Order: sequence, then C-alpha cells, then structure tokens
Amino acid sequence: MKLASFEIGGHPEIGLVAGTRIISLTRALPGLPGSMVEVIVHWQSVRAAIGELHLDSAPGFPLADVVLRAPIARPGKVMAIGMNYADHVAESGAKPPAHQVWFTKTVNSVHAPYAPIKLPRVSNAVDYEAELVFIIGTAGRYISKLAAPGHVFGYCVGNDVSARDWQLRTPQWVLGKSFDTHGPFGPWITTADEVGDPHRLGIRTRVNGELRQQSNTRELIFDVFEQIAHLSEVMTLEPGDVVFSGTPGGVGAAMKPPVYLRDADRVQCEVDELGMIEAVCEAE
Amino acid sequence: MKLASFEIGGHPEIGLVAGTRIISLTRALPGLPGSMVEVIVHWQSVRAAIGELHLDSAPGFPLADVVLRAPIARPGKVMAIGMNYADHVAESGAKPPAHQVWFTKTVNSVHAPYAPIKLPRVSNAVDYEAELVFIIGTAGRYISKLAAPGHVFGYCVGNDVSARDWQLRTPQWVLGKSFDTHGPFGPWITTADEVGDPHRLGIRTRVNGELRQQSNTRELIFDVFEQIAHLSEVMTLEPGDVVFSGTPGGVGAAMKPPVYLRDADRVQCEVDELGMIEAVCEAE
Repeated sequence: MKLASFEIGGHPEIGLVAGTRIISLTRALPGLPGSMVEVIVHWQSVRAAIGELHLDSAPGFPLADVVLRAPIARPGKVMAIGMNYADHVAESGAKPPAHQVWFTKTVNSVHAPYAPIKLPRVSNAVDYEAELVFIIGTAGRYISKLAAPGHVFGYCVGNDVSARDWQLRTPQWVLGKSFDTHGPFGPWITTADEVGDPHRLGIRTRVNGELRQQSNTRELIFDVFEQIAHLSEVMTLEPGDVVFSGTPGGVGAAMKPPVYLRDADRVQCEVDELGMIEAVCEAE
Repeated sequence: MKLASFEIGGHPEIGLVAGTRIISLTRALPGLPGSMVEVIVHWQSVRAAIGELHLDSAPGFPLADVVLRAPIARPGKVMAIGMNYADHVAESGAKPPAHQVWFTKTVNSVHAPYAPIKLPRVSNAVDYEAELVFIIGTAGRYISKLAAPGHVFGYCVGNDVSARDWQLRTPQWVLGKSFDTHGPFGPWITTADEVGDPHRLGIRTRVNGELRQQSNTRELIFDVFEQIAHLSEVMTLEPGDVVFSGTPGGVGAAMKPPVYLRDADRVQCEVDELGMIEAVCEAE
C-alpha cells in the first residue's frame, strides 16, 4: 500500500494512493487517527479497516488535485547516515568507513515532496542527495539484523539537501544538513510488504533533466537492516522515526568544478517503485 | 517563576515550584494546556492566570512527595554546542573553535532530572558534562544577538551525558550523545525574567561528592545569545526547543588516566539559582 499525507482545501488528510487517485482514509474511516505516526502505531487495525473498504466507491480525489505533505509531519527523530555508497565515499576523498557514520537532520528540515527547496542567503553551496528513506514501524532497542525487517513500516524517496559550506565549516555536519526545507521526502510511504527486498532498487537524481546520480540500493555499504541494528544499540527507535540511508556518487560538490543548486533549478530524486519527489529551488 | 513537569500517583501535571512546595497548575487552572510546550506557546495568558491565583490556598504538594519529569517531554529539537569553555577545549586537546560546533541529542535521550542514568552494555566510557540549558520561548529565524533574549523562555541545568567511545568512533558525535537516558535536564525551568543575565552563574559537577567541574557561565566562548543568532541562521527555532550550551573543563575523559562513570556512581550537576539535578548510574 501507498500511504500519503495530503491536503485539499487546506485541510490535512491521510490517504491511500491507488493509481492516479487518492482515497481519503480520513473520510472513509471515521475512527482513523489524525496523524500518520498514530496510523503507524495502530497499523494492524487500520490495515484491517482498509481491507474492508470498497475502494471504487470510497471518497477520494484525483491525485493531481491534492497537495502532498511530508508523509510524517513531526518525526521524533530524523537520522541520516553518511558515506554509505562506495562511489560517494571515493568522490568525497574519504576512506571507506569502518563504522557507520550517523548524523541527524533536525525536524525543521522536514518538507513536502514537491514543495520548493529554499536556498538560504547564508549559503552558497546547497547540494542534493537522493536517498532511500525508511520509516520505523514498531519500537525497539537492541534489534538484531535478523529481526530488523519486522521494525520497518515502509519506504520513501528522500533528498538529504546539504549546505556544503555549513556542513564542512566544523567537524559536525548537522547544521549544514538542517536548514529549513532541506529534508523533503515522500511522495508517500510504500509499505514494507509491498516493497519486499529494499536492496534492489534503482536510485537517481536529475537536475533540470540532467542525470546526476544513478545507482542501486544494492550498493549500500551498510544496508537498511544493519543500520537498524546499529542505531538501536544506542537509541530506542520509535514508530514514525525517519531514516535517510545514504546517497550514491554524483553530488554537485564532487563535480569539477563543484556545481551547486541555483535559483529555479528543478531537482528530481527517484527510487524505483517508490516514486519521485521534485522541487524547484528558490533563492531566499 | 519555576515551572516543573511532575507526576503524582502516576498522573502527569505541570506545577509551580514555591520553596519546598509545588503548586499544581494543572489542578488550579482548569484551562491549562496539557504539555509544557503548549504552556510556553500560551505563556502570556498562563502567566496572567497564575498572577490571579492565591498561592497559599492553591492545590499543591510537598516538593519531596512528587516525581519530577523532564521539563519538556518531547522537544522538537535538542541542540548542543561543543568546545564552548576554554578550559574544556584545552583538556580535549582541541583548538579554540573559529565557528560554533553544534551537534544534536536525539529525543530518546531526554530524561528526568533525578532518574537513573543507564550505563549501556555497549559502552565502557560514559561521562558527565554539566551544562546551562536554555529553552526557546518564541519561534524565530534570523534572530539577531540583540533580539535573542526575547526568544528565551527560561533556563535549566543539564547533564550532556556522553559515551566517549561512541562519540569518537566516527567524526560525528551524535550517537555517543544520544543513548537512552543520556539527556537529563531540570529540575525545573526558571523563567528568563527571574534569571536576568545568564552569564554570571556558577556551574559544577560532583561525582560521589567529589568536585569534578567548577566554572561560571561567564566563561562561555559563545554566549547564549550568540548561540541563538547562529542557530537561527539555519533553522527556525520553536517554543520548547532545548539547547545545551556547553560544558566546562573537568570531564572524566580528561582525567589522567580517564575515569568514567560506574554502576552506583552518584552524579550531581548544579547551576547557581537554577538548582541541581542528580542521578545514580545503573549498569545495564
């Protein structure tokens, strides 16, 4: 299933994407929780209720008529791993990491999948990073790699937008990763059962139609389940936590000379089967 | 005023600390929002309502009879600055930073001011860091240093508990800063108007009664208002955001040889006028 957060007429709703239509679960299921995190928490019963809907007659809209929001509006955590594709490690002039390198994107970076990315006036080096994003479904600590698949609710496409000047100004990357609007993801959550193995999906970025990143999630150095095992040694993972799983080679910072995003640039990030997110850049 | 989150009989309430008593604002003011973040958002009207209470006859409890919780249960962000006292920079073998060095503590680290600190089985190097913590009152972006005081709701004492092995295993500190229970703060929020100038407060840590850290917030390299100005160049700060403002010299990692926290150690962190937080360490 593909679950989306959307608005129509300014009213926030939760929907089920079915081809070119979006069914409003908010309208079809009067007891539905108001937030996607709560839908995830109560997924067993929500899924059962969806199973009893007559989708053809359920209330809905043409997908083109609604405004998609970030699938999770206020995640408790947005974790992101760096240096997790060999070609990106090489282009960054780094060594392959012995350990998983984690940072965070703060909640203000969370952004809708088709909304404009702001180019802040205090940075001259805003870059894209297409990523497979996964959403935690059930809470856990000390989750083994073997048990990890049972903790994934679903997958999205993300753009780990990065202000390289701020990212590299100090040894800690977080500020450069956390500008307002710099964490778009979506366009919706594709549930884990529909995806199956997440390590076989093509991933790519186009800027103004030009192919910049092209790889496959099978190239992840630390895969999704190893990431969950490692993170959960430290922290209790919770439903609705959002994890950016790393970007492949081809970022603008590694071009010679570097090419950063400019006003009116159109950035498309795509992962096979999960969809595409797309933003026009807006100088502040 | 001193505002606390507490529970009694398992029921969460918000209270006003008055000497050795805590007045239940939850009981005294029926319209009070349920969360401290919402109290901060609606502070003008809440403060007015408090002003009309007869404190002597208001419902309350002996402070010793309640269990204090983290003042903010689910902050949107927990930001923390590193290398922000000269003596701590020196003991860490680092150079004075040219720019503010920021990292985050994830929300799972948020912890009550007197609750046990867990020593995880995957770390052998858990350390303390006493810090002045400030709480954002009003939202803003691009806040000037001059305007920054108007965005501070209040102050707490924090312990930026740090698993040094995890902190230094990769260049990114966040995992070492984000273990469950490793972000206690409190014991309550002292409002900014009561504190006045926050850059004149003694700060200290004792471990099993032994004085380990002792400094004064006047020694901050980047002060509270410079921190707000810098952070808000990147991110919209929001009511209830929590900021750890740096630790002075005297951490266990800098002792020769290093001395880390052990099972049953008692750690007390204190800031003048703001109170003390205290935890017994518990090996997992």
